[in-house]
Amino acid sequence: MFRKKLKRGPQVILPKDAALILAYSGIAPGSKVVDAGAGSGFLATFLGTYLRPGKVYTYETDERFLQIVKDNIVACGLEDVVTLKHADVTKGIKEKDVDLVTLDLRDAKKALKHAKTALVDGGMVVTYSPTIEHLMGVLKELKKLNFSEIKPVENIVREWKTELTTRPETMGLMHTGFLTFAKKIK
Amino acid sequence: MFRKKLKRGPQVILPKDAALILAYSGIAPGSKVVDAGAGSGFLATFLGTYLRPGKVYTYETDERFLQIVKDNIVACGLEDVVTLKHADVTKGIKEKDVDLVTLDLRDAKKALKHAKTALVDGGMVVTYSPTIEHLMGVLKELKKLNFSEIKPVENIVREWKTELTTRPETMGLMHTGFLTFAKKIK
Amino acid sequence: MFRKKLKRGPQVILPKDAALILAYSGIAPGSKVVDAGAGSGFLATFLGTYLRPGKVYTYETDERFLQIVKDNIVACGLEDVVTLKHADVTKGIKEKDVDLVTLDLRDAKKALKHAKTALVDGGMVVTYSPTIEHLMGVLKELKKLNFSEIKPVENIVREWKTELTTRPETMGLMHTGFLTFAKKIK
Amino acid sequence: MFRKKLKRGPQVILPKDAALILAYSGIAPGSKVVDAGAGSGFLATFLGTYLRPGKVYTYETDERFLQIVKDNIVACGLEDVVTLKHADVTKGIKEKDVDLVTLDLRDAKKALKHAKTALVDGGMVVTYSPTIEHLMGVLKELKKLNFSEIKPVENIVREWKTELTTRPETMGLMHTGFLTFAKKIK
Repeated sequence: MFRKKLKRGPQVILPKDAALILAYSGIAPGSKVVDAGAGSGFLATFLGTYLRPGKVYTYETDERFLQIVKDNIVACGLEDVVTLKHADVTKGIKEKDVDLVTLDLRDAKKALKHAKTALVDGGMVVTYSPTIEHLMGVLKELKKLNFSEIKPVENIVREWKTELTTRPETMGLMHTGFLTFAKKIK
Repeated sequence: MFRKKLKRGPQVILPKDAALILAYSGIAPGSKVVDAGAGSGFLATFLGTYLRPGKVYTYETDERFLQIVKDNIVACGLEDVVTLKHADVTKGIKEKDVDLVTLDLRDAKKALKHAKTALVDGGMVVTYSPTIEHLMGVLKELKKLNFSEIKPVENIVREWKTELTTRPETMGLMHTGFLTFAKKIK
Repeated sequence: MFRKKLKRGPQVILPKDAALILAYSGIAPGSKVVDAGAGSGFLATFLGTYLRPGKVYTYETDERFLQIVKDNIVACGLEDVVTLKHADVTKGIKEKDVDLVTLDLRDAKKALKHAKTALVDGGMVVTYSPTIEHLMGVLKELKKLNFSEIKPVENIVREWKTELTTRPETMGLMHTGFLTFAKKIK
Repeated sequence: MFRKKLKRGPQVILPKDAALILAYSGIAPGSKVVDAGAGSGFLATFLGTYLRPGKVYTYETDERFLQIVKDNIVACGLEDVVTLKHADVTKGIKEKDVDLVTLDLRDAKKALKHAKTALVDGGMVVTYSPTIEHLMGVLKELKKLNFSEIKPVENIVREWKTELTTRPETMGLMHTGFLTFAKKIK
């Protein structure tokens, strides 16, 4: 129940989306992941929880978030798994043979060429796009870089209530972001 | 733009659901409709707008709503189309050869046998069920009464926004009610 | 139940979407509508059914569809309401004081300036966009032309089944098109 | 990418639903899980992959599936994590201090009292209900047994395509099952 321990910072990817990234990317204990931007560290610590003895390298440029991420890594007991890097993923990724690159940042499209270099053959990149403009920029760059099996999805969790009567909640979360999965082949 | 003129009263069926009732029931000018409960008269006046020289008989038992409905009929200029009846649809329907019966009331299931008697062969009944408990009661009674082509549907309108960026609204209407369409055969 | 009489031609706007256009545009008997392209005439005859003594002018450039549309107008008994025009709506709209312009064609964005000229103040245009590329082109042009209350929506009807058990259908229609409503102000 | 290795047997919980169970239940390495019925072992091996040194005890009564499950446990290299039990979960659960009980079987409601006994305080049960009838039976029993925070959800993944144009897939998976989460308090 590690999520209860997390400090809140910038808006984070929700558990429903983090879970889909885990399930669709097929990463497992031992996998190597690069994540950017760290934000509050939610996605990095969520994935890190399940990947030991794997590694998660999480990039963040915004100094305001660094301490929150560090605190959350410690709170989750993931110092041996999650490494915070104060670096700009759009400038380059130093890690090699990476199984998964997750990009939740405004300039995701600028990081895709570095993601491709860092990934193993068959490795995956996942981008999180709150808007269509962001999504279209990512899709264009993924195609230009010859990524395979490019697949955007929306993940909608519809909550029901069941106190006196049973029915879907009247209001709910209609949209968080578009998740786009793509595979590096060759 | 008749809807702008309507006085607000009890919660009403939304335009998206009223529109689906119109489109799926296949009613057209000249059709005869029985509607209950009237509520504020929204559904009765919406349908009435498009059915002249047809008729809409709208039943309401709650005295508090009667004046609102009357005012809305007048505001829409539908005195020749929509007739308000201060009567209980679960006790009986006097109209014959009805093309469509719409039921948006707690005791909808108790009105279904009267709906069947009132409908022409091939006529339709549509029920509006906010909850699963309501829906299941309606479905059971529809089957017992040998209605055909029983089809519950949900109608979800997802709004997008497009000011600075383009994306679905974060929060939205996840549920209003289950609409169940069924046909009287024989 | 006029839809049963229609000949099938090119892919048509579905009843769920046609109904939403009717309900959200607020058109009513007496309204004047311009529709393009006619396709098989489904939307023109659907709207025409409910607008008498109003008018629907439906534009079509593709000669293969003209006879189908004519036959469908006659089958619906709407010769006095729906007028088929063998003309290109992207080249101009002759009608004036139009309450609603519906655009379901590849080059919808090229017709928007003519739609604005044809519409009354407070009149609406509705576009049907199967793809994001189409939608984004339409939105850009609507903004450039100073349309107001620009609102894209998706309309998802989720069908349930209720034979032995009650549940949503496993597979269903996840997408038809984005409907974008916009109003001419001034 | 362990899923590629799995033999197919009976219909399985999909990755989207398995992922949500992982994320919402908050289980982590070291957690103890009871799962029934095993089916082909998909959910047991999915969860097992991420829980070492935890344990997953998966119950199955149908002899036809036992060998498939065993093969899948071996294929995933999870012999030290996932234990297959040829037993009926509706007759009792021997494990104690369980963090999560997952029930994907027709008689789920009959297993809930045993789930409550097996769970630690704060532990969760998750049921998978393909139908409303199943869901309503589960909800009634959960309330009777004083489970807390009873929350049914639907998880809809909407796939987009982006070859020549970008748009949601026309047809898609509208329903798999209702997932109901509930917590044992005290």
